[in-house]
Formats: sequence, C-alpha cells, structure tokens
Amino acid sequence: MFEELKNEVFEANISLVNSGLVLLTWGNVSAINRAEGVVIIKPSGVDYNKMKADDMVIVNLKGEVVSGDKKPSSDTATHIELYKAFPKIGAVVHTHSKFATVFCQANAEINCLGTTHADHFSGKIPVTRQLTENEVYENYELNTGKIIVERFKSLDPVSIPSVLVAGHAPFSWGKNAIDAVKNSITLERVAEMALFTLQLNPSAVLPDYILNKHYQRKHGPNAYYGQK
Amino acid sequence: MFEELKNEVFEANISLVNSGLVLLTWGNVSAINRAEGVVIIKPSGVDYNKMKADDMVIVNLKGEVVSGDKKPSSDTATHIELYKAFPKIGAVVHTHSKFATVFCQANAEINCLGTTHADHFSGKIPVTRQLTENEVYENYELNTGKIIVERFKSLDPVSIPSVLVAGHAPFSWGKNAIDAVKNSITLERVAEMALFTLQLNPSAVLPDYILNKHYQRKHGPNAYYGQK
Amino acid sequence: MFEELKNEVFEANISLVNSGLVLLTWGNVSAINRAEGVVIIKPSGVDYNKMKADDMVIVNLKGEVVSGDKKPSSDTATHIELYKAFPKIGAVVHTHSKFATVFCQANAEINCLGTTHADHFSGKIPVTRQLTENEVYENYELNTGKIIVERFKSLDPVSIPSVLVAGHAPFSWGKNAIDAVKNSITLERVAEMALFTLQLNPSAVLPDYILNKHYQRKHGPNAYYGQK
Amino acid sequence: MFEELKNEVFEANISLVNSGLVLLTWGNVSAINRAEGVVIIKPSGVDYNKMKADDMVIVNLKGEVVSGDKKPSSDTATHIELYKAFPKIGAVVHTHSKFATVFCQANAEINCLGTTHADHFSGKIPVTRQLTENEVYENYELNTGKIIVERFKSLDPVSIPSVLVAGHAPFSWGKNAIDAVKNSITLERVAEMALFTLQLNPSAVLPDYILNKHYQRKHGPNAYYGQK
Repeated sequence: MFEELKNEVFEANISLVNSGLVLLTWGNVSAINRAEGVVIIKPSGVDYNKMKADDMVIVNLKGEVVSGDKKPSSDTATHIELYKAFPKIGAVVHTHSKFATVFCQANAEINCLGTTHADHFSGKIPVTRQLTENEVYENYELNTGKIIVERFKSLDPVSIPSVLVAGHAPFSWGKNAIDAVKNSITLERVAEMALFTLQLNPSAVLPDYILNKHYQRKHGPNAYYGQK
Repeated sequence: MFEELKNEVFEANISLVNSGLVLLTWGNVSAINRAEGVVIIKPSGVDYNKMKADDMVIVNLKGEVVSGDKKPSSDTATHIELYKAFPKIGAVVHTHSKFATVFCQANAEINCLGTTHADHFSGKIPVTRQLTENEVYENYELNTGKIIVERFKSLDPVSIPSVLVAGHAPFSWGKNAIDAVKNSITLERVAEMALFTLQLNPSAVLPDYILNKHYQRKHGPNAYYGQK
Repeated sequence: MFEELKNEVFEANISLVNSGLVLLTWGNVSAINRAEGVVIIKPSGVDYNKMKADDMVIVNLKGEVVSGDKKPSSDTATHIELYKAFPKIGAVVHTHSKFATVFCQANAEINCLGTTHADHFSGKIPVTRQLTENEVYENYELNTGKIIVERFKSLDPVSIPSVLVAGHAPFSWGKNAIDAVKNSITLERVAEMALFTLQLNPSAVLPDYILNKHYQRKHGPNAYYGQK
Repeated sequence: MFEELKNEVFEANISLVNSGLVLLTWGNVSAINRAEGVVIIKPSGVDYNKMKADDMVIVNLKGEVVSGDKKPSSDTATHIELYKAFPKIGAVVHTHSKFATVFCQANAEINCLGTTHADHFSGKIPVTRQLTENEVYENYELNTGKIIVERFKSLDPVSIPSVLVAGHAPFSWGKNAIDAVKNSITLERVAEMALFTLQLNPSAVLPDYILNKHYQRKHGPNAYYGQK
C-alpha cells in the first residue's frame, strides 16, 4: 500500500545523495498522505546503496509504525511535528548539507543577499533558538520540531520552506517530495553564496523591492516564471 | 525553421549544466539571427533533463513568440535589449554561477588580478548600479537590460563580454552560443580565483602592460594564440 | 592466507580514493587479526589504479613482512603502535584529506561545533604535540605513533576515533576497515564545516548537553539510531 | 617519428583535464628528447576533446617547428628556456590551476606548512618577480622563462619542481611527463591547503627538521618510500 508515495520518498532520498547534499546516511525525506493520516519516511541509518523503495517505513501521526520491517528515521518525531503545525506541506527533507549546516553551527540566519535567494524564499532563512538541556533530555526529536514551529509563529512556512536548527542542521519542506528536495538544494547553494558574499562584503544586502519582485514573479498570484 | 540555431542554443544550454554553472533551472542561453530579426531562447523553467532542441522558443525583437509551444525565458526582454544595444554579439548567456553571483551579491566589480582574466577580458568586469524601485515595478527584465547597456556606455562589449548585475547574477555574451558559454565559464573561474586572491592579498593587482599583452596576444590584430 | 582481510583492506583503500580523500598515493589502510598477531597493510607508494588485493602486505607486530612481494606502507610502524595501545580497534586509516590536513597544518584541534561532529565523536578532535628533532631522526614513524598514544592518555580512542598529527595529517581508526574509513570521511566533512563555521562565527560552540545527546543516541548503551 | 614521446605528451595533456587542473584550453605539457635536441609540445588553443596524439608539435631548441601541421603552444619559448637552464628535467607542465594561480595572482610564495608539501618540495615554492614593461613587449614568453631561471639561481629545480609566475600562473616540471603532471597536481593541492591553513592560523609553520625528514624519506639517498 502507498506504493506510489513510497517510490516518491525513496527516489527523493536517492536524489539527495546524487545532489551531493547527503554524505553516508546523514539525511532523510518523508511525505504525508493527509487523507489516510500516514507518513512515509526513510528507515534509520540504512546504507543508501542497499536501500530499496520497499524499505520506506509507514508511520501514523503518533509515530507508530503501521507498516514496514525497519525502524523509521530517528528524526521521525520532528517530521511529524512539522506536518501537524504546517497543514499545507506534503513532504519534509532533513540533511546535513555543508554550507547550510555551517550557518546552523554558526547560529546565523541567512539574510537575503540576492535574487537566487529571493526566487525561492520570501525573506531571510531563520535559525531556531537552541534547545534547553531539559528539552533535549525530555524528548529531543519532538522538541526539535517544536522549536522550529515556535520560530515560525509569525512566519509563513509556504513562502519560507527551510529552517536552520541552531547547532544542528537544516530542515526543508514543500508541497511534495520533489519540491522539498529542490528547496533543500536551493538552500544549500544560497547558504554557500551567502557565506562568500559576506566575506567579500560584510554589509551586502538586497533591497526589499527586488526581493519581493523576484519572489512574486515565481510564486505570486501573477507569477509568470515557468510553463503553465 | 532555424533548426541549426535551435540546436546550437539547446546544446549551449545543456553545456551550462555539464559545466556546473547551472543548478536546477537557473540559467538560459539565446542566440540571434540578425538577418531574420529573430532570437532563439530557452523556454522558461523547464527541467533540463526533459528539454529538447524543439522546445527552444523563437521570438521577434519585440519579444513576441513567433514559433514554439512554450513560454520563452522570463529574462527574454533582457536578452533582446542586449542584442539591440550590442550589434556585434550573436548570443547571450545568463547563469547564477556560484562565484560570479557572489560578486554580484557583494556589489563588487572584478578587477583584473591575473593573466587568466586578461586572456579573456580587456579590463575589469563591471557591476551595474542597482535598479530603482520604480524601474523594478515598471518593467523589471527590460530595465535590467537597460542598466547593463548604461554601464557599457564607455565600455566595449566585444572586449568585455560579461557583466555583473548588482544583487542578481551575471550575463555574458559572445559571437555565437559556444563563445558566450566559454565566456561564462571563464567569468566563473576568474571570479572564484579573484575572491581567494583578495583574501590572500587584498592589494593584489596586475600591471596594465601585462593585462594588455595577454589580451592582445589572444584577441588583438596580431594575435598569435590558437590555430589559424 | 587472510584472503578475506586482504580484500577488506584493499577495498577500503580504493574507497578512500573514490571518496575523494586520497590524491595520488597519499593514504593507507590497515587491519589487524589479533588472534594471529598480524597486520594487513597497503604497500608503499603503489599506484591505486594498478593495485590488487594480493598486493596487500602482511606484517607481524614487530613490523616484519610475513607475506607479500611488496614493501609495506612507510607508515607501518605508526599503525602498529596504535594497534598495541588501543586494544579495541581493528583497523587504521591514514590520509592527507584536505580540510583535516588543514587543521593539522594549523596545529588546531577541532572543537565540537555541531551535531554532525557529535554524532561521531564524543568530544573535540585532538591535535598531537609536534615531534622533537630527536624523535624525528631516531624513529619518525614509530614516534608518530607514540605521540598519538601520548595524546590519548586521558581520552577514549573508541569514542574519539581520529587524531590530527601536528604539521602532518590525520589518522582515524575503527572496529574494522569500513568503520575506520567512515570515521575518516566524517572527520574530513566535520573539519571542512568547522573551518567555515569559525570564519562565520569565531565563537561558535555546541552546548555539552546536545553533544552528549547526539553521541549517545548513536553510540550509547541506549542508542536508538540505525537498525538492530 | 618520436611516436612514443608524442603519445606520452598527449596523454599527459589529457590527464591534466581529467585531474581538474585545466579548464577549456588553459594548459600545456611538453617533453624533451635531449639526444635529438627536440621538444614535443601541445598545439596552441586546440580543443582537448578533438586533440589527437598526432597533433603534438615537434620543435627544435630555437623554437622552430620541425614536424607537425599545427602551431605549437604560445608558451613554447618559456618551455625551451627551462629545458636549456635545467639540464636534468625531461618535461614541463603549465596550467592555470585554481589555487596555485591564486598564489601567483597574490604574488605570494607558498611556505612549507606541512608534510604533504615536504613530501614533494624541499622548501617553499618560490614566486618570480614581475616582468618589466620592456621585458613584456620585447619577448614575453622568452622572458617569462628567463625570470623563472633567474628565480632559481640559488635553488635546485630538481628538489623544487614548481614555480609561481607573479600575476600569471604556475609552471611545474619533472623527469618525464607523468612526473611533471604529478608535481602539478601536488602543487595545486598544496596551494589549496596552504590558503586555508593560513586563514585558520596565519603563523603556521613546519619545523625544518620535519620538512627535511619527509623530503629525504621520499627523495634522499636513503629514501625508503615506495617500491624498489
């Protein structure tokens, strides 16, 4: 059951490796079927070379395994928290991609420095606060989800489809697995260019009217980028 | 019609991906047939893996589609403006290549720091001014072309075949699509080496007489680089 | 004899090249059979393209060749010293991988700046002291092993499976060759991200309680990462 | 005639591209047959994809074409000057490889910061002085050779097989084409690691006794690295 969605999640996981965003087993993709209340997610710590579509694990929204021989990703509780809080998203991607992770480790948000950023994010990419010691020991993965949601209290997860978890690594999402992977790829490139831009010119900034123009021409009500 | 030029534009678009200059769909190549007054350009937002030569769109110099099922690149108006202002160029390339874009985002021109630069550009690679809010809302893509042309008022687009659009990304051009792609590849490498050179030695500079020598031995009236 | 272990060591050496950690012949992997008191190690300075599993050299714990046509790696004495001092390790990897070597050259340890580091190392990755002139001339390779062991006097080589040799390059180890290679790959990525993190935020640091949580969820007595 | 040497030079040119050291047509390899007084060198500005072994050009030590349909590399006079001054070398490689060129552009020599450097170079990699305006216009390529030779007045080209030409790019050499290419690959990696090492620790330095030990164990009279 859910063969199509399992295939989509499997292919998305593989594409993260092919895009250079995932090294060893450091990443995972999930997708949700909201009608059925299930999430399909990568199994935990499985070698990508040996992974098959059928290894994807199906869990319900309590995180319980509904179907599958393997344990789901150890980050499953984080994914579920995002699905609950962000009703319009259909897939979640987690990686330790190099430069996005650098910003997480530096505890630094990514300001919009150019149109590549503006084409995909309607503003800066936020960084969460650090988890408290208590939150870590109580329920680390669940609370990781909660501080992401907390950070988005006044942000729109549809127009800002990525977050930097302080000291950890990024999460991205999208309307489906392919879309979430694209946001993940974009985040990584935007992070890399931001790092070197700031080294060249620490006061670099893009005017808001160009940011808005680029975001709107791709995603606004009168978007004219791409085919119909 | 224009099958040969469509193929050339298609192949040039693909070579941008293979050269690592284009990620996802962030780039476009066009070429002009000046006798017929038409420009062949990549369609907007089409996946490179699924794109065929026949998807290239033919537009006239008003930007109207003459032939093709798809919408042309959203940057078409910029390309056309360059063809109108620079009568000797035959093709235009736009990418968000990593390090050239870093210089755009930093609003920093690329001074000539070595012979790799001097072999391809007769002087520094200029950066445009930023568009005003009005110019952005009035006609963003057209005005992007206009500020490039404005920047080249006292520069020769044949000997300086690239520009950095402030806050955005580079445009390059050439006598044909292959030539424009080569200039785009060169610009990217020159930008990367300039960034690290400046980090190592902020006052690095190439004497003008070496700059001129290298440019002239490849492009001057007595050029002796390459085969006849 | 020891065909299986020779194959494992051979494959691990090749995987270092494929992972981009080894350029030319700058690296070596060994594994130990403690029951038989032998170490299988890469031959010295052999081209990876021409190397076969059968070229692996078998030495005893005095470093004498027991079997094999070729000279063992010039770093053999270092490997043996590690096997003697660290009874729980089964394989040793030496590379000059780019960013780990940068930290060695800079004589700088790698503090734990994020969870990628914490997932694999229970604390900072230490750097040895520099060898004295006497130690270099007396027995360079043996003494390289000795200063690594000296550095681990109050550290656990199982939970910190890598070291940076000052002015030289890293050594990693693990329970077997695959595991040691993975630690080597992780070290390299952790080093690269640490370098850029420090450039972005020189005072970056990960709280100890997150470091411990991540290390324990993968390696502690109640680890829940991966499959059973 | 000289088919074997032509093949060797051809293969070495191709390996520069495969190693990522040459972009577009920016590089050339030559080798000398001292008994016959001829140099085999890459043709000027030929696309690597279309180049054949038979396109290699044979010139005498005055730089005159002895055999071949094509024009020799525009840097031929530099190569010949090196062969005349350095009687023990058998091949010369010129590239614009990224990080070695960064050091040339920064007019900065590469101090020995670690054993990777010491394994291949007996000391720092020198940078030439800049050519005067007169030297550039009189005979650019010949004088480029002359300032390299001038820089090596008190240096040994066998133990330091690379030079950084100020504002330009590196030249390397070796006993044959394969050896010269390896020195070129090593130079590039050493340059990249030196750049980042200096960013991490501007006062990094390797003690001379470790430098000498590493150089001697690979190249000294009692070298013990590699197979016999």
